[in-house]
Amino acid sequence: MPEFSPGLEGVVAAETEVSEVDGANGRLIYRGGYLIEDLAPVATFEEVAYLLWHGELPTEAELEALKHQMAAGRRLTDAARGALESSDPATSPMDILRTVVSAQGSSKALTKPTLEEAIALAAVFPTIVAAGWRRSQGHEVVKPRDDLGHAANLLWMMEGKEPSADRARWVESYLVLLADHGLNASTFTGRVIASTGSDLTSCVVGAIGALKGAAHGGATFAARTLLDKVGSADNAEKWLTEAHDRNERFAGFGHRVYRTYDPRARILRDLAKVAAPELHRTAARTEEVALRILHEAHPERPNATNVDFWASVVLTGAGIPKELFTCLFATSRVSGWTAHVLEAMKDLRIIRPASVWIGPEPGKKPLALVKR
Amino acid sequence: MPEFSPGLEGVVAAETEVSEVDGANGRLIYRGGYLIEDLAPVATFEEVAYLLWHGELPTEAELEALKHQMAAGRRLTDAARGALESSDPATSPMDILRTVVSAQGSSKALTKPTLEEAIALAAVFPTIVAAGWRRSQGHEVVKPRDDLGHAANLLWMMEGKEPSADRARWVESYLVLLADHGLNASTFTGRVIASTGSDLTSCVVGAIGALKGAAHGGATFAARTLLDKVGSADNAEKWLTEAHDRNERFAGFGHRVYRTYDPRARILRDLAKVAAPELHRTAARTEEVALRILHEAHPERPNATNVDFWASVVLTGAGIPKELFTCLFATSRVSGWTAHVLEAMKDLRIIRPASVWIGPEPGKKPLALVKR
Repeated sequence: MPEFSPGLEGVVAAETEVSEVDGANGRLIYRGGYLIEDLAPVATFEEVAYLLWHGELPTEAELEALKHQMAAGRRLTDAARGALESSDPATSPMDILRTVVSAQGSSKALTKPTLEEAIALAAVFPTIVAAGWRRSQGHEVVKPRDDLGHAANLLWMMEGKEPSADRARWVESYLVLLADHGLNASTFTGRVIASTGSDLTSCVVGAIGALKGAAHGGATFAARTLLDKVGSADNAEKWLTEAHDRNERFAGFGHRVYRTYDPRARILRDLAKVAAPELHRTAARTEEVALRILHEAHPERPNATNVDFWASVVLTGAGIPKELFTCLFATSRVSGWTAHVLEAMKDLRIIRPASVWIGPEPGKKPLALVKR
Repeated sequence: MPEFSPGLEGVVAAETEVSEVDGANGRLIYRGGYLIEDLAPVATFEEVAYLLWHGELPTEAELEALKHQMAAGRRLTDAARGALESSDPATSPMDILRTVVSAQGSSKALTKPTLEEAIALAAVFPTIVAAGWRRSQGHEVVKPRDDLGHAANLLWMMEGKEPSADRARWVESYLVLLADHGLNASTFTGRVIASTGSDLTSCVVGAIGALKGAAHGGATFAARTLLDKVGSADNAEKWLTEAHDRNERFAGFGHRVYRTYDPRARILRDLAKVAAPELHRTAARTEEVALRILHEAHPERPNATNVDFWASVVLTGAGIPKELFTCLFATSRVSGWTAHVLEAMKDLRIIRPASVWIGPEPGKKPLALVKR
């Protein structure tokens, strides 16, 4: 029996051409071999989703076709609308997303995951996220607009007014940057579910559940909360020193795979200067002090800033309320989740690891059931 | 970099005292060291769920308290009822279960999994399964009855009349037998989701999605479908020989872990004699012929009958329509899923395996985006 691998660290669970996290060199590679720093400044979310699904960037005609298909996928089914409208408006946005995506993707029979389903699921995320947000604020739900791109339409549905090109672009860059990231826990969840021969909605709904965790998609919210506590650049030294003395973890620092600065964090840090200049100052000082404190405490550990830290600043600048950060993450990552599931379909084998029994020796204890 | 382990076969992903599949010796051990053959004939589902959650069988007072708590957990929340009533009655029962459990377990804030939540989730499964079934048949939903046990109340809500003690006992035995089974794919899904710091409902909803797959929980339905095709004991030789010649897989045979006869299959085979004498004859002959054909074709493989094969016969005898077989599996296994998640909480480490890049060398292809 092989050894127990906590967290499956270093265990290879898939061969993939969807994306590669080259942690040693601080590179993130998307399908086709594209480096994230080349895509992020120029690509739209639709182009990157197409790339992850097909392995090639779309031609003009292919991109137009995808945009039409996604615009058509923005409407909720009756079942999804019913599930949304029955929910308490104060429900956690990720719980709304989990339930409403599950309803939207329901079907009468078990079907194999298809590209069409992947497109439809990715298309509907902004509708659900925005509608849930509007309801939580006591506002009427805003219908999607077919003439807007994925990012701009999300802001439109959240606010009922067309966003500036800058704000739409910041959200777009975020969506491009977070679209895929190797075998992260939510993507792996989707692949485990797919491995049983289940449907694509089940994979995506499971992945939403995994992303919700504070150690995964919830980290962006936690990073923003840290910045709220720090409050200002001037307060960073004092607050972080005291927090460290209290053994508080610094949200936004450290990653399982990267041993250098996360390339997405670098791009978002630059973007944040323009998108949220005030918060950027606080964040930059926070980063400086946090990295110094962490390095002094654990010089052996790579304590580089992770993507969540700077993503929280850019999303703030783009006007996304922090309650929706994990939902924005899901809105991006659903492209990667579905690409991974479609890839996994090519060679399906049930993912069923082993466990080690740490209970008592079997068959020794007498069976003491309540008498009937 | 270690080798790729397809399906993570043999990779140890957890230490557990919830259950152990001793595949070499054909033993299934539940928490506390109890053998499945000792529990199955006498224990109730509530007792086994208690055992999996606590590690001890309940005293009379503890069992009474659990029964009360579960009876109280049988009501749907407004959100869950709304999601149920908005669904198309023809929706796949597992999709209904996935959506309505998600709605039922929604909350305003992210909370750590608790035993109380585990009990509430396990308690509500029969309500959702039965209500979905009633709706699919065009019947009014039947309210749960606090005075009935878990198994009997399920049949009551499905049919609107009290089941015979025998039928309730057959369902109960099934629920006891399927309650846990090591790191099967749905349980592993739940543990991966839990590892991110997510909530219990997310874990259970993800596990439902994994169980839905044809290679996992869907196998009981497939086994019953095989028996429908065989039709009668007399037809087994002819049908199976021809199916084998067509390279059709025999549903209900083979398992990743057992190298001998699955102990649960043995118990269910005996039970089936009484619960479904007619179908038992067809199944017994089907098993005999299928095992011979499979052995002749692959003498090196252990082709023992799996639990799904005989479960499909017992559930049929208990009057469960085959469309609900996977839901019954979920109704049982939710006890194990939640027990595993609660166990995993003791030492949380994000499950994030590695992958091997099989795409092209990075940074070589020029970026050809559509001009804007």
